[in-house]
Amino acid sequence: MEKKIIGIDLGGTSIKFAILTQAGEIQHKWSIATTILDEGSHIVPDMIASIKHQMELLGLSAENFLGIGMGSPGVVDRQEGTVVGAYNLNWKTKQAVKKQIESAIGIPFFIDNDANVAALGEQWVGAGGNHPDVVFVTLGTGVGGGVIADGHLIHGIAGGAGELGHIVVDFDQPIACTCGKKGCLETVASATGIVNLTRRYAESYAGDAALKALIDDGQEVTAKVVFDHAKEGDELGMIVYKNFSRYLGTACANIANILNPSTIVIGGGVSAAGDFLLEGLQEVFNTHAFPQIAKSTQLALADLGNDAGVIGAASLVLK
Amino acid sequence: MEKKIIGIDLGGTSIKFAILTQAGEIQHKWSIATTILDEGSHIVPDMIASIKHQMELLGLSAENFLGIGMGSPGVVDRQEGTVVGAYNLNWKTKQAVKKQIESAIGIPFFIDNDANVAALGEQWVGAGGNHPDVVFVTLGTGVGGGVIADGHLIHGIAGGAGELGHIVVDFDQPIACTCGKKGCLETVASATGIVNLTRRYAESYAGDAALKALIDDGQEVTAKVVFDHAKEGDELGMIVYKNFSRYLGTACANIANILNPSTIVIGGGVSAAGDFLLEGLQEVFNTHAFPQIAKSTQLALADLGNDAGVIGAASLVLK
Repeated sequence: MEKKIIGIDLGGTSIKFAILTQAGEIQHKWSIATTILDEGSHIVPDMIASIKHQMELLGLSAENFLGIGMGSPGVVDRQEGTVVGAYNLNWKTKQAVKKQIESAIGIPFFIDNDANVAALGEQWVGAGGNHPDVVFVTLGTGVGGGVIADGHLIHGIAGGAGELGHIVVDFDQPIACTCGKKGCLETVASATGIVNLTRRYAESYAGDAALKALIDDGQEVTAKVVFDHAKEGDELGMIVYKNFSRYLGTACANIANILNPSTIVIGGGVSAAGDFLLEGLQEVFNTHAFPQIAKSTQLALADLGNDAGVIGAASLVLK
Repeated sequence: MEKKIIGIDLGGTSIKFAILTQAGEIQHKWSIATTILDEGSHIVPDMIASIKHQMELLGLSAENFLGIGMGSPGVVDRQEGTVVGAYNLNWKTKQAVKKQIESAIGIPFFIDNDANVAALGEQWVGAGGNHPDVVFVTLGTGVGGGVIADGHLIHGIAGGAGELGHIVVDFDQPIACTCGKKGCLETVASATGIVNLTRRYAESYAGDAALKALIDDGQEVTAKVVFDHAKEGDELGMIVYKNFSRYLGTACANIANILNPSTIVIGGGVSAAGDFLLEGLQEVFNTHAFPQIAKSTQLALADLGNDAGVIGAASLVLK
């Protein structure tokens, strides 16, 4: 029997697990809640217990597995297999994850940063179609990403490669970013960024758009509400949509001018806006990408949803 | 005896050759003029004759060489070993370079695009210090470049990776680029781009800067003249220098936000401005690069000058 792989996607709310084939097909998946009490000291023991329990249920032992791969928040040391500074897990000090898991389960363990791991998932069996050159941009509360070039996940000298949310795109009215800089992609293209833009353009907007009325009324306006209004042709919604597209499209074009990937995959909660988002993006992309690159690099929506993490994590085992 | 490598840097004016060790040390170099007559049909035979002649002079035969590497202008097919559309060589139709050279000399032949090859040279034994993650930006008549990530020269899906001159950086008064787009780095940071900026800012400049007088006098103003004036504190020269730094520094910061290379190497004729250029660049870079990246990615001037081409070409043999 071909050996299987375990993929783990460690998050602040839940820990997702999957057992996959070496072709990246999920055969079984489950999840447990993340207990961040006591400085996150329950997390690794909980993971170990859950994996052992599932292996028992399925009648599988360590010899049936090629390895365990995991995506983690925080600063990951891939060689050491440690994580530090994952604040949503309460992991302030260095956690020896690899050592604990390997000694308890007896299966080789591999780890990388969660955004990188999601990028690997989409590249391998998602919208990237297993092409060696794929860039993943995830638009969530923040903007993250990962770069796969010539078949390799790119980390750079200090693990900072793929900080796509911090590409500077706004030079007119740059908004302060959590990173300490101004005008980062994240300030205008994340879920929060779209709300930033809505407030910015609402201020000088004088028409009778429904979206403007919502804001003036003090109602909660989310990225979804903004895109839904834009899809209906709401004038303020369209202003936000066009500027969002301009910023994100420029960033994507410049990524492509540097790397000419086969695909730039757009994922994260904001990408639920779907083809409507892609259309606005494509127009700006075609204007700013080098002609040969505009023809060869495609933009696509992410395919795997929440499974990208466990699938990409599993792929670490095969590298 | 350790086998040697031949590196060739094919240009529109001259063809440079070198014999190198496998450590990238040049042991012998020479060059011949490029004869582009008769649709460039003399170029490959001239190269073959010149290599044979030098091998004879040095008493070396095919067995003494591991391979021949070459950097070429135009569109290169690395697998086929062909070049097409190298207009400065008069090569309009496809040239079977590899086939001709291998059958005449009997040494394995490798080829890549000239900008990529220069990037490899600087990465290997130049300012890149043989680190696996290095980006090379060359500021000449145009702006070109090459990306080495995780030890691999990145080509992308259609060979367009490294089109760093076409990163869009100017959104205020974008100048038309030869590529058909507007606002490309090349329009404001190449030798021509610096002259573009000088003319732009001279128009609205009302002071008595010496550089302004030169322009009003109809004298030829080159990038070197502009930088020399800026170094002396010329007011108009400083305006151009600050804006040049802003555009190039932003592009470098965004390259670093994507790739976090150990070094971004700045080469080409414009880089002769030296540390003065680097200082202006570093200031903007620090403002726009993600903090962890600003600390880990360094900016440096190219080290190898005209030898980057033959050295990088030689490195193709070792890949």
